[in-house]
Amino acid sequence: MRIARFSIDGNVAFGAVETAEGDSGTGTTDGLVINIMKGIPFADFELSGTRVPLDKVRLLPPVLPNKVVAIGRNYADHARELGHEVPTAPWAFFKPSTSVIGPADPIVYPSFSQEVHHEAELAVVIGRLCREVPRERVKDVILGYTCANDVTARDTQRTEKQWARAKGFDSSCPLGPWIETDLDPSDLAITATVNGELRQAGRTAQMINSIEDLIVNITEAMTLLPGDVLLTGTPAGVGPLLPGDEVSVTVEGVGTLTNKVVARA
Amino acid sequence: MRIARFSIDGNVAFGAVETAEGDSGTGTTDGLVINIMKGIPFADFELSGTRVPLDKVRLLPPVLPNKVVAIGRNYADHARELGHEVPTAPWAFFKPSTSVIGPADPIVYPSFSQEVHHEAELAVVIGRLCREVPRERVKDVILGYTCANDVTARDTQRTEKQWARAKGFDSSCPLGPWIETDLDPSDLAITATVNGELRQAGRTAQMINSIEDLIVNITEAMTLLPGDVLLTGTPAGVGPLLPGDEVSVTVEGVGTLTNKVVARA
Repeated sequence: MRIARFSIDGNVAFGAVETAEGDSGTGTTDGLVINIMKGIPFADFELSGTRVPLDKVRLLPPVLPNKVVAIGRNYADHARELGHEVPTAPWAFFKPSTSVIGPADPIVYPSFSQEVHHEAELAVVIGRLCREVPRERVKDVILGYTCANDVTARDTQRTEKQWARAKGFDSSCPLGPWIETDLDPSDLAITATVNGELRQAGRTAQMINSIEDLIVNITEAMTLLPGDVLLTGTPAGVGPLLPGDEVSVTVEGVGTLTNKVVARA
Repeated sequence: MRIARFSIDGNVAFGAVETAEGDSGTGTTDGLVINIMKGIPFADFELSGTRVPLDKVRLLPPVLPNKVVAIGRNYADHARELGHEVPTAPWAFFKPSTSVIGPADPIVYPSFSQEVHHEAELAVVIGRLCREVPRERVKDVILGYTCANDVTARDTQRTEKQWARAKGFDSSCPLGPWIETDLDPSDLAITATVNGELRQAGRTAQMINSIEDLIVNITEAMTLLPGDVLLTGTPAGVGPLLPGDEVSVTVEGVGTLTNKVVARA
């Protein structure tokens, strides 16, 4: 199932994204509809059967996470392109809830940076409260997968050894377009394009630490809550974004998350 | 005003901590009462006049922050004791909401660390949604001050360059005992004791970056929400905690936050 969160006429709801009868399923939003959900995806819910065209709603971030846990340098080729060692254990950091935006929202260039980079990532959405998750139970705590852009002020990251500002500024965590619940995440293509030009291309099979590794490692330390999000690292090819650019992150089997970059007003 | 958050008979509320008539005001909880608040301290509220003895309630974390922003090495003597350079700009990092505990809660030793340290800190509680706060308006966004212990797995901090696990594990952010709203934070004594022995002693006047500096710096990047908490760094004297220890953080003019350290069950 593809679970979207959206607003229509000022109301916010979850719903299942479906192909309208007779649609060719081209992967665009043309002809897609949302079957409005009664309830929330983290508890009992049912689909109402009431459908609205996808192009009539505003897609919101598919979850409002309490916290986003992200992983630095989880693809060896990306660590090397920045001239860094390849870490042996995951480097976990947080992006705050205030950094999350949805597919319809702009990435706003922060005032303190001259070098904002895109980082295309597979995001894991946690479905239930969990702590000290054994490896064999990891799949049980996952609701599904979405696309993320771990937008980074690269110049700030170089000068501030902890990355709260460099990777936590408002609008630095685009998520979407929806959550795909039926997906094998072990070998998916991930790409980033800027203004239609391919900039990043990798496969999730290249992760140094797998999703199982990461969830075991993180929940050894901390409780994850329903709706919390795990960003799993970015492949090689990160590069600059400038106001006016349009950046798209595509994860195979999920969809495409597109955001515009704008200057601060 | 001293604003506490507490539970009694299963109900949770805020209230103002007051000296009972005739009490000598010794700074202990003896004779203190809580005047129960109608509403919450981040919006319009009034005190009900209904009072309960402080020793009949369970004190909770005085706020449930969406995020805790903390600052590394903001006292030069502490940076030097760890053998580090003194940073010129603040190093901001996050502690997640799931790390917050109150005065009655234990610090639970994480399974992955053999070297958990106390770090006594002055905590600033944000009173209103704010972004890009000008220096002269900083005081307007502060609700008040409380004590914090930035509990740190020092061995993990050395091996994982980002500190999400080292400083974000469950129970690593004791806050309390209450929020003091009427306080000049510029030169307060901060101490930590372990089992009654003095381990840390400093003054807020020794901060490298002032509270004004920090809130300008952080809100240049991100929105702070009502109830968010800023930890302002720790003075020299950090050291180990072991299961069975009792650690107390005292901030002059606020009070004392005491937590027991326990082994994992």
